[in-house]
Amino acid sequence: MSRPNSVRWLNEVQWDDQGLVPVIAQEAASGDVLMFAWMNREALQRTAETGEAIYWSRSRRRLWHKGEESGHIQKVLEIRLDCDSDVVLLKIEQIGGIACHTGRHSCFFQRYLADGSWETVDPVVKDPKDIYK
Amino acid sequence: MSRPNSVRWLNEVQWDDQGLVPVIAQEAASGDVLMFAWMNREALQRTAETGEAIYWSRSRRRLWHKGEESGHIQKVLEIRLDCDSDVVLLKIEQIGGIACHTGRHSCFFQRYLADGSWETVDPVVKDPKDIYK
Repeated sequence: MSRPNSVRWLNEVQWDDQGLVPVIAQEAASGDVLMFAWMNREALQRTAETGEAIYWSRSRRRLWHKGEESGHIQKVLEIRLDCDSDVVLLKIEQIGGIACHTGRHSCFFQRYLADGSWETVDPVVKDPKDIYK
Repeated sequence: MSRPNSVRWLNEVQWDDQGLVPVIAQEAASGDVLMFAWMNREALQRTAETGEAIYWSRSRRRLWHKGEESGHIQKVLEIRLDCDSDVVLLKIEQIGGIACHTGRHSCFFQRYLADGSWETVDPVVKDPKDIYK
């Protein structure tokens, strides 16, 4: 008997020595890269099952259902895996239009300037105080 | 005296315990996420100086000027840093239209199917045998 597919696809992912895989979340409609996080095996399995992004929080050392506090859930439209099977790309719909804990659309709001500095170039959409109550 | 900006912006990056930062390469014109790699401090500095993506190859343990063998250079149009200053996003022009060593446009060519499998969904643009001679 072969293992069920539901296990095999998870085995094909090349988990790192901490059992994690890097994950890029990209907004499907705009193409904007919104955030970067990590998943363990259970997080990826539950993401596929529920259709909502569930990451592994390395700082809190627990599963992190994105939006669980803020309401800024990520609906997963597509899951991609790279050529080495060690990086995941999610194509998502970002509920509320805000992925970043700073209240911005994307986490990648600092831009390098040629003078050798980082400039904040994207606006805060919603004050974090009004997001995390 | 303050340190020159050319050093300070590199110090603002939160390098991991191996002195690396994850890097996402996104095609500026299409929005396609093409690949994921790593940079150390020197790689990021040289990327900014030269305007071409220079990564740190973890397997070869050396700087890797993307396209050095294939010719598939990545012209860097913009460098972004995330909210925690520990992930870099490059907006690039992909010379030759091929980022992946398999000869595909993007490395993220495997798509998860609801039946529990990964399907290759993007075509090989150019045979790797004709890229790496």
